[in-house]
Amino acid sequence: MALVVQKFGGSSVADAASIQRVARRVVETKEAGNDVVVVVSAMGDTTDELLDLAGQITEDAPAREMDILLTAGERISMALLAMAIHEQGARARSYTGQQAGLRTDTRYGKASIVGVVPERIVRAIKDGQVAIVAGFQGVNEHNDVTTLGRGGSDTTAVALAAALDADVCEIYTDVDGLFTADPRIVPNARRVQRITYEETLELAAHGAKILHLRAVEFARRYNVPLHVRSSFSNKQGTWVADAPVGDQEEEAMEDPIISGVAHDRSQGKITVVGVPDVPGTAAHLFEVVAAAEANIDMIVQNVSSQATGLTDISFTLPEADGPATLKAIEGARDRLQYDELRYDDQIGKLSLVGAGMRTHPGVSAKLFGALSAAGINIEMISTSEIRISVVTRAQDLDAAVRAVHTAFDLDAEETEAVVYGGTGR
Amino acid sequence: MALVVQKFGGSSVADAASIQRVARRVVETKEAGNDVVVVVSAMGDTTDELLDLAGQITEDAPAREMDILLTAGERISMALLAMAIHEQGARARSYTGQQAGLRTDTRYGKASIVGVVPERIVRAIKDGQVAIVAGFQGVNEHNDVTTLGRGGSDTTAVALAAALDADVCEIYTDVDGLFTADPRIVPNARRVQRITYEETLELAAHGAKILHLRAVEFARRYNVPLHVRSSFSNKQGTWVADAPVGDQEEEAMEDPIISGVAHDRSQGKITVVGVPDVPGTAAHLFEVVAAAEANIDMIVQNVSSQATGLTDISFTLPEADGPATLKAIEGARDRLQYDELRYDDQIGKLSLVGAGMRTHPGVSAKLFGALSAAGINIEMISTSEIRISVVTRAQDLDAAVRAVHTAFDLDAEETEAVVYGGTGR
Repeated sequence: MALVVQKFGGSSVADAASIQRVARRVVETKEAGNDVVVVVSAMGDTTDELLDLAGQITEDAPAREMDILLTAGERISMALLAMAIHEQGARARSYTGQQAGLRTDTRYGKASIVGVVPERIVRAIKDGQVAIVAGFQGVNEHNDVTTLGRGGSDTTAVALAAALDADVCEIYTDVDGLFTADPRIVPNARRVQRITYEETLELAAHGAKILHLRAVEFARRYNVPLHVRSSFSNKQGTWVADAPVGDQEEEAMEDPIISGVAHDRSQGKITVVGVPDVPGTAAHLFEVVAAAEANIDMIVQNVSSQATGLTDISFTLPEADGPATLKAIEGARDRLQYDELRYDDQIGKLSLVGAGMRTHPGVSAKLFGALSAAGINIEMISTSEIRISVVTRAQDLDAAVRAVHTAFDLDAEETEAVVYGGTGR
Repeated sequence: MALVVQKFGGSSVADAASIQRVARRVVETKEAGNDVVVVVSAMGDTTDELLDLAGQITEDAPAREMDILLTAGERISMALLAMAIHEQGARARSYTGQQAGLRTDTRYGKASIVGVVPERIVRAIKDGQVAIVAGFQGVNEHNDVTTLGRGGSDTTAVALAAALDADVCEIYTDVDGLFTADPRIVPNARRVQRITYEETLELAAHGAKILHLRAVEFARRYNVPLHVRSSFSNKQGTWVADAPVGDQEEEAMEDPIISGVAHDRSQGKITVVGVPDVPGTAAHLFEVVAAAEANIDMIVQNVSSQATGLTDISFTLPEADGPATLKAIEGARDRLQYDELRYDDQIGKLSLVGAGMRTHPGVSAKLFGALSAAGINIEMISTSEIRISVVTRAQDLDAAVRAVHTAFDLDAEETEAVVYGGTGR
């Protein structure tokens, strides 16, 4: 008997029939002798509909009210799921973030969990109930409702699993797990059986959309084994853990060097042309950028022209942060003394991730060789210990992903993945 | 400067435009120098849509989960209203029943308020904020969400007004106040300027739909002046209070004998034919009926037939309670020893209400005379100190209301009422 936390996203509870399907899976897990805690997102498009309503009323909603509005969606789905489980003969109770003891700071819209006090969940489990918890929400020290921002429901599930010392946190999605690349781009991508937290973090940070960064960080910190799997099948998915879990066997062969190829087309590139190549220039620039709250990623500074003493600095950032950041840099023109400011949103980023590259030299060379052979130009490069990222033209990105996937022998013999589309929050 | 509690029903906040209109009225009231607390229902059809979703999943939803589900509607409308008020330049914060301190017992679906501890509302008012409170909901001793049942939002508003010692509780609706009869039946019905709690209770209990019985009971117990008025105009509506409020003048003329004519076509009549006319028969019958939880209203027992020693007992009850009650009586046939059981759902009930009838004899005679002159047969009669009710055929009810309205000089010289249709909860 194990304690299992199961998280279902919005596409898994999009309508009454989907909720009944989720209920069957929960009841099966319970009847197999497990204690079950379920975390749900809002049904399908509920959140978008609520955002649309708010948008009809104001462009400038107070963040506290926006959080109260958005958390209504999970209350609906959790109550309906409790009813569906009850209808199938098991006992279930639903709990809001506040009731489940999800305590956060007061940053509405992007609150951080500061503690989990799941007394009621523990009591429900002891009482033989399935406990259903609203994802994405908590309560702050003022007893006001907060939301956890993007990936919030995953984070709720992992935080609860950590607090309850659960045996596994199952993240249900509409694909069979994590793949060596997005199967929509690489149809013969392979499902990954097990992957470390660190690799998963790199993949999530660089465009892979199945798991959210914050949830993986939480799982790593508290060593919660994640099982990413499909809500449409009973197949094993991908385990995220630093060691084999339960009766899993240590892989017979040596671990693969590369665990996956992520891609990201949501970034833009800002180039500040002709800044003085003197100490402090970059510091000034990135102070201005930080004040605009942009999440910058890659930075490249060109070699200075000896003739002019000027240089160019380029950096990438989420497209959503582009306009505000450009405005901030323009506002600081006198101080930064640049010649020209350029913005390019037609870039794509490819990231190759694998813990094995620490001990295998030549990975970069092979990557650059594969892209060169495919005729794809590299515009920027950045690396970490277990990741190499390159920026290409956006229109070259799919071809780049396929070329690299093949070059590193990641292609499966036949297509396994079925992509259903849509992601929860 | 006054403290005003304003309650807006579902039809007043049906869409973004309606919410903006309500926000304007709230801001006007605030800018006129008042402290304002607002109670809102769920938007338009939200509650029906949630009930429909639950119905797709189960016929037998746990009551606790149903309450969590249904209270999502008010969270949505209250947050949107706070945004709309903010957009118009005033400050507002929304509060769930739990946050507003609405404490109830644990009877999910029809909870009673056991206390109101509106600390946060008081703080919000002191801080110059408009406080918006979710109607229809509270929290029980287990920190679980409860709903107050039909008329719940009115009850929330009156309970808050009592706890805050508000100067007035304004109930906004889609008509201009309480009328001497339903303007859809009597187009020249008059708006009532002021009416006592007791009369309002009798009208609400006997079919008038503008105010809910529980809210009026609460208002009477705590002496909260109610102002029932239209959200579509700035006209004075009807004041429900036992004495003139504020700068209202005591009416110059003697109070009218009759304050209104209510009608109700939602009742059915059960007749138990041929029961032994011996002590205990009625007691046995109504024990059975009470066990079926029917809300019985009028009871008539015929004079016994001397030949047979048998009699008939008729009583009225809400049509919704009909099937279960009939089943219970059939189940007790051996004990009750009746000959036959009849059910009639084609009845109508007319109730004439007026505190003045205490001191004016002859009201019954005038009522019966008016119905007789209109050729309408009376099937049952019941009276209280300030009310006379009669049962007629359902198809005669409208004509009966008009005849009585005219006979008691209630007709206005011209039509004032505009009926918009639809009621909130």
